[in-house]
Amino acid sequence: MRQPAGRSARRSGGERKPREERWAELIEVATQVFYEKGYDGASLQDIADRLGMLKGSLYYYIQSKEELLFDVISTVHRDGLAVIRARAEVEGDPLQRLENVIVGHVEHTCRNLVPTAVFLHELSALPPERRQEVLGSEHAYQGVFRDLIELAQKEGLVRADLDPRLGALTVLGSTNWVYRWFRPGGAFTPEKIGAQMAEIAIRGIATQKALAARYP
Amino acid sequence: MRQPAGRSARRSGGERKPREERWAELIEVATQVFYEKGYDGASLQDIADRLGMLKGSLYYYIQSKEELLFDVISTVHRDGLAVIRARAEVEGDPLQRLENVIVGHVEHTCRNLVPTAVFLHELSALPPERRQEVLGSEHAYQGVFRDLIELAQKEGLVRADLDPRLGALTVLGSTNWVYRWFRPGGAFTPEKIGAQMAEIAIRGIATQKALAARYP
Repeated sequence: MRQPAGRSARRSGGERKPREERWAELIEVATQVFYEKGYDGASLQDIADRLGMLKGSLYYYIQSKEELLFDVISTVHRDGLAVIRARAEVEGDPLQRLENVIVGHVEHTCRNLVPTAVFLHELSALPPERRQEVLGSEHAYQGVFRDLIELAQKEGLVRADLDPRLGALTVLGSTNWVYRWFRPGGAFTPEKIGAQMAEIAIRGIATQKALAARYP
Repeated sequence: MRQPAGRSARRSGGERKPREERWAELIEVATQVFYEKGYDGASLQDIADRLGMLKGSLYYYIQSKEELLFDVISTVHRDGLAVIRARAEVEGDPLQRLENVIVGHVEHTCRNLVPTAVFLHELSALPPERRQEVLGSEHAYQGVFRDLIELAQKEGLVRADLDPRLGALTVLGSTNWVYRWFRPGGAFTPEKIGAQMAEIAIRGIATQKALAARYP
């Protein structure tokens, strides 16, 4: 991420805003504009208009539209990954940790709907090397889910006939899909969705023995 | 869908192709171009170039780019819905029918990756009234899953504490997500993915009693 350098921008009243605040505002507006118009359809002019800035002033913060997309995408990916990695490390057996990861992932998605949508829809708009920079050499998200399933399988907590990668993709699919239908203030809270999805997933993959211990 | 009218087009050798064949070719190419460039980024010129036609000749078949998108989206939606509705009606208890629906949906998605991606990414590019025309007044896909879960719940086959809509969205999420990672010829066949996802879903939502009868 390129941080804005130099002086802070001027508020319309002539008052100055700190540059961090101005950068955060720029990213928030860019996220919304990419979401509404798609990356290809969005212009720096649209973003400048919504900020009440001249387009030329944007170059004080960034060199290109791509830089904004990269920031939006890499931030939501990095933050979401940090959430699930932290939860994967909490104490407990691998099934408990997986449950914890699912809840965290759902809640993070529900609370970051717009940047998540931009990430999932516009990742391919980044050039391959920048995409790689975001995702890393492996599918990091998938890896967290798959590793826990493998571990649980070794401990006899997950059915032996389940392919861990397929299990991970199944769970990740249901939890990622939330970004398409969740509406804040709707019928379900993020907590409720997380808890129910986690239970469906755990019941779906666990051994009879693990389930008997878990849901007596 | 507007069918091409009038005479059939000429092959480069001067031989005529039937208009149905020419239309199918046009839709196939349009699907691919929308997939690769996004609807906004794709032009009728791109489509004509790939067909080796003059752009003007496209107007023999269609009036606008939107008409092509509508055809692609409504066809894959209608066909997929027909697949799962047919499977929802096959004999058996509601859990067996749900299993059958999941397998059918996964297989249809795997076999129609590119039009499914266009449907899921570009639906919002259609004007609201045309979108409505595709989707109907209700979420028809979701409805098939939800109705079976509700029915199974009434028969004591699905846990009473599960919200049927949330259950439907969970299953639909994992099965829809397949379009993002499935690769023909990859590690998993559509049949294997369908079978494993169906088992995870059924185990995830069923009552102990139903499971004991099902997986003794």
